[in-house]
Amino acid sequence: MKVKSENIVWHHNHVSREERHELNQHRSCVLWFTGLSGAGKSTLSTAVERELYNRGIRSYVLDGDNIRHGLNNNLGFSPEDRKENIRRIGEVSKLFVDAGLFALSAFISPYREDRDMVRSRFADGEFIEVYVRCSVDECARRDPKGLYEKAMRGEIKQFTGVSAPYEEPLTAEIIVNSESQSIDESVAQIINYLKDQGYIQDEE
Amino acid sequence: MKVKSENIVWHHNHVSREERHELNQHRSCVLWFTGLSGAGKSTLSTAVERELYNRGIRSYVLDGDNIRHGLNNNLGFSPEDRKENIRRIGEVSKLFVDAGLFALSAFISPYREDRDMVRSRFADGEFIEVYVRCSVDECARRDPKGLYEKAMRGEIKQFTGVSAPYEEPLTAEIIVNSESQSIDESVAQIINYLKDQGYIQDEE
Repeated sequence: MKVKSENIVWHHNHVSREERHELNQHRSCVLWFTGLSGAGKSTLSTAVERELYNRGIRSYVLDGDNIRHGLNNNLGFSPEDRKENIRRIGEVSKLFVDAGLFALSAFISPYREDRDMVRSRFADGEFIEVYVRCSVDECARRDPKGLYEKAMRGEIKQFTGVSAPYEEPLTAEIIVNSESQSIDESVAQIINYLKDQGYIQDEE
Repeated sequence: MKVKSENIVWHHNHVSREERHELNQHRSCVLWFTGLSGAGKSTLSTAVERELYNRGIRSYVLDGDNIRHGLNNNLGFSPEDRKENIRRIGEVSKLFVDAGLFALSAFISPYREDRDMVRSRFADGEFIEVYVRCSVDECARRDPKGLYEKAMRGEIKQFTGVSAPYEEPLTAEIIVNSESQSIDESVAQIINYLKDQGYIQDEE
């Protein structure tokens, strides 16, 4: 009996998100970077992570490096697996936001339906879609991993922007143009958005 | 070319775990609570989360409430799904540890092989197995969710401790006896372990 009642008491005693924000002295949300391969999502999210860190703000980048080799190492590239890939990343982002951190998710996530499915799992204002815009031509010119070349030779099937569609966001909170803006400019744009919307404070 | 070289620079610029520990003023690791249903894993992990919070230490409880309804809502209770359930929780724990938090995982996780699989994904000292020991008789007497009664009537198949095995840890870092110890005593035991091993500092 004693244990039962203790159970009830303790279960109501989880550390709340508000308490976490108080300890950290900042709010939490997800920044969902979407865009073509080579548009600069990983680069930009890592630069934002660094800038937030310099301001004493906790964030964590979810990208191919830590997700495809871990949590999602049993997923391929079929339509179902791509959908499940995005779903899991969305759920992990949710856990991070709940834990009081900024989750920075950097995946192509080409389909509106999948991105909106993730958005629907968050409260208003917790999901910030960041469209990293860059033309296919420019991405193919950069081609840091040689993927566009392979895709154009037909060696990669269903490659976003070449042989599979990329559905541009219609309601992205932030649009970054990685062809005309430097990384520093794009970081400043995102930090300003977070300040204007009250997610983070001005530096003292 | 410019973008390429910036990519390389930025990719080396991820905020490291050491930098996170410096910002937070504490280390990070996973506390993996294992034991029978009703042994008190959720209760104890939540109490540890609260005690760590009171000490200014960031932690996050992964349990059925936030995992089964989210990340793992597409898994059932087949042997394969149970294994995948534990695998995913292990991978999420790893992301949290990497992000600088204590991950408190509270799942029955009855099989040694599965727990050792998770352990193998961590560096030495990052995975702390906490065996919450309680006899089947006592768990069945508590039966906070009425599950033992159903299992004994045969209404739940493959119920750990009744119709499916629980493999006790052989090398748990911490063993808590939830029949003879109060929750406060068990919390103190875990906090003392973390202090003795240098994971957290004495309060000032």
